[in-house]
Amino acid sequence: MSDAAGGGRRAAVTDLLVEACARLVGEANVERDVWLSDASGVGGRAPVMVKPASAEEVREVVAWAYAQDVPIVPVGGASGYSGGIVPIDPRPSVAVSLERLNRVRSFDPLLWRMEVEAGVTTATVQRLARENGLLFPPDPGAPEQSQIGGNLATNAGGPHAFKYGVTSRWVTGVEAVIAPGELATFGGPVRKDVAGYDLRSLLIGSEGTLGVITAAWLRLVPAPPMAIPVAATYSSIPDGVRAIEAALGSGVVPATIEYLQGTCLAYAPPPFLDARDVAFMVICEAESEHERDELLEALGDTAAAQDPKVLWRWRGGVSLAVRAAKGEKLAEDIAVPLDRLEDAITRSLEIGEAHRVEATSWGHAGDGNLHVSYLFDPGDREEARRAEAAATALFDLARELGGTVSGEHGIGLLKGGQLLGQWSEPAVAAHEAVKRALDPKGLFNPGKKEPRPA
Amino acid sequence: MSDAAGGGRRAAVTDLLVEACARLVGEANVERDVWLSDASGVGGRAPVMVKPASAEEVREVVAWAYAQDVPIVPVGGASGYSGGIVPIDPRPSVAVSLERLNRVRSFDPLLWRMEVEAGVTTATVQRLARENGLLFPPDPGAPEQSQIGGNLATNAGGPHAFKYGVTSRWVTGVEAVIAPGELATFGGPVRKDVAGYDLRSLLIGSEGTLGVITAAWLRLVPAPPMAIPVAATYSSIPDGVRAIEAALGSGVVPATIEYLQGTCLAYAPPPFLDARDVAFMVICEAESEHERDELLEALGDTAAAQDPKVLWRWRGGVSLAVRAAKGEKLAEDIAVPLDRLEDAITRSLEIGEAHRVEATSWGHAGDGNLHVSYLFDPGDREEARRAEAAATALFDLARELGGTVSGEHGIGLLKGGQLLGQWSEPAVAAHEAVKRALDPKGLFNPGKKEPRPA
Repeated sequence: MSDAAGGGRRAAVTDLLVEACARLVGEANVERDVWLSDASGVGGRAPVMVKPASAEEVREVVAWAYAQDVPIVPVGGASGYSGGIVPIDPRPSVAVSLERLNRVRSFDPLLWRMEVEAGVTTATVQRLARENGLLFPPDPGAPEQSQIGGNLATNAGGPHAFKYGVTSRWVTGVEAVIAPGELATFGGPVRKDVAGYDLRSLLIGSEGTLGVITAAWLRLVPAPPMAIPVAATYSSIPDGVRAIEAALGSGVVPATIEYLQGTCLAYAPPPFLDARDVAFMVICEAESEHERDELLEALGDTAAAQDPKVLWRWRGGVSLAVRAAKGEKLAEDIAVPLDRLEDAITRSLEIGEAHRVEATSWGHAGDGNLHVSYLFDPGDREEARRAEAAATALFDLARELGGTVSGEHGIGLLKGGQLLGQWSEPAVAAHEAVKRALDPKGLFNPGKKEPRPA
Repeated sequence: MSDAAGGGRRAAVTDLLVEACARLVGEANVERDVWLSDASGVGGRAPVMVKPASAEEVREVVAWAYAQDVPIVPVGGASGYSGGIVPIDPRPSVAVSLERLNRVRSFDPLLWRMEVEAGVTTATVQRLARENGLLFPPDPGAPEQSQIGGNLATNAGGPHAFKYGVTSRWVTGVEAVIAPGELATFGGPVRKDVAGYDLRSLLIGSEGTLGVITAAWLRLVPAPPMAIPVAATYSSIPDGVRAIEAALGSGVVPATIEYLQGTCLAYAPPPFLDARDVAFMVICEAESEHERDELLEALGDTAAAQDPKVLWRWRGGVSLAVRAAKGEKLAEDIAVPLDRLEDAITRSLEIGEAHRVEATSWGHAGDGNLHVSYLFDPGDREEARRAEAAATALFDLARELGGTVSGEHGIGLLKGGQLLGQWSEPAVAAHEAVKRALDPKGLFNPGKKEPRPA
């Protein structure tokens, strides 16, 4: 088949997809030839993207696509780091944007719970909770952009996951469209439920490969009376890690135990202290004056309480500042057992040196979760390749230290094949068996969260 | 086949099973013709029970049994309430007791974590944590008897689950023998991991129907500085439920929000107050003086702080006292959305009246989790049948109120078939697909956690 004939055939297939989708969700809610990319920078083209208005419309689209062997790519706020929304299947796919499923179905502040559709932004949930004296603890980056459906699909975390746990801890029910096009609910507003297998947890973190999440029942908790970040600096990584151990031994449970290594501070100097000659910073958040005092003591001489707004706004900008340093970065997020934290931080920087790319590292120290970035000039293909090689070495390091290739971002497209080696062959086979059982045609987000190399 | 011939053939098959098992775990660790029953009172006979000494021995037993089509029934501390350990498959089964897998593989108090084998008792984990200033929060009943493996298999809860969550929240890794006889580990000492599907959560609460759990990595947390239970009494159920709502609105997160309805108090009068004419009691636990004061105010005039040892020892004895009242009780544990709590408590008692059996009710009010007992004289078969009918009506009530037929105990044998109706047909089909995928021969604890009637 010539290129022109192939292009013509693709266009004809696209016409058919657009027509079918328009019948289901209305012509105004179907876009053709859509470029989809996320915060990782990778992207790809979907011949069709639909924007259903309700869970029932999602069900209709999925039922139609599943019957026609058309791959289905769920699309949230596009703030992920693993290329999870990028269509890669060679067959023409239908991307399903959840952005119009943006209703808060119910909110009972006195009962600490909320039911929201998948397209509601993380910031909306956080704001509604806050305005009612409550807290929705998961705090991944880009809250104005990221959607609850995507938070569930990746089981998102964030700094406060140290004390409060990741997204799955705050979800009591998941509504999803599963194969071959059925709307199913696992759990609900009930806070405890052991009647069926925990398919709620199975769908959470499945990155759209087992179904399309359409809504969630969320748990909330009374907001702490105060939030006082305590920041301290150290002249070496080992000194900083010892301070983290002191915080763990202080008897209090800090809401966060964050770290930033020196290079980040050089690119994004904090407004509240002199970052010159600082090799390492630790940020623990206290929720009472007693906790603040304990943490000030544990973190040592340089520790000082900070304004939470100033501190977290600055912290949220570090990633962009680091990216800007060379134009682009490859951002990975391994996690390791806490006793390997120092090793992991030190060696992730050494990997950068060995591959002649600048490395930076920050992350959720208390959870052993490192965000490691290898910086490169997007115009320099050779440097980009060295950054890729560094990332591969980083995954090897995570496995060697008994850790995981992803603590938060997920596997998506970019870490495909990396689970094998971290999990044993029988464990990987169980992962694959579950996928086949719930998606026998392999049409939900094909090519994502693949456990072994193709 | 005559009964004698059938008996002779069963004996011959048993001989073969005993011989094969003895080769794997040693003759001294194989028992024949074992009666297995749990706290529910139901029991059954296993032709063979093995007591392997290690995860590797469990693997060998399972691999052999799976190859020979022999059903496998995992046995923990036998403190469950759903008959989960009772062999019921008509084929001769091998019961696998985990009691000799009783090693604490590692304990790092400074890193808040512990790796234990499945047969370690809940009390051992709690004591080790406590002696090191830490807390393992799950607190199901009978801690000296119940084992961590069983706690995971049922995703056990308890009073403190209100603040701290159920068992799955405190497990970062599960080691299990899965089909057809492979030792696999999902997670480990890492506190965050999204690299594979959440098969850790899937195994937790699966009641031995997807594999045999052999060990777990547990998370711990610094013990709170103090634990001060505040108890208050009310002259009616609605008054008590209003007090629970006030506690939820107090701005603090109580470690527990427990309730006991009047009949329980009549059978097990608390040592710390006059229970006459009390219709309802609420127990909230504070972890600071500030929380105590807030809860004293929220719970009203009768509220008083109690000695935690005295209170929780008394509370732990309520179940036995209630059982002793008539000789036996049918104990169920539905959970409902919090706004249906009053309805659920009131109507569960009315169900007793309608079936002419005495009903009592206590439980984890903050989680909407009711333990309802229908009392009967074990010598009175007709009364026992009425208690059974009351329990069936209770399950219908749970579903009608948007709740679950089990918040803690699980489905086991006794609630088989009850998931259908609570979950939709596609959701139940997904549950069954997962079971088939991970246990294609249906040999792991057959007849348990069955979602639909046989």
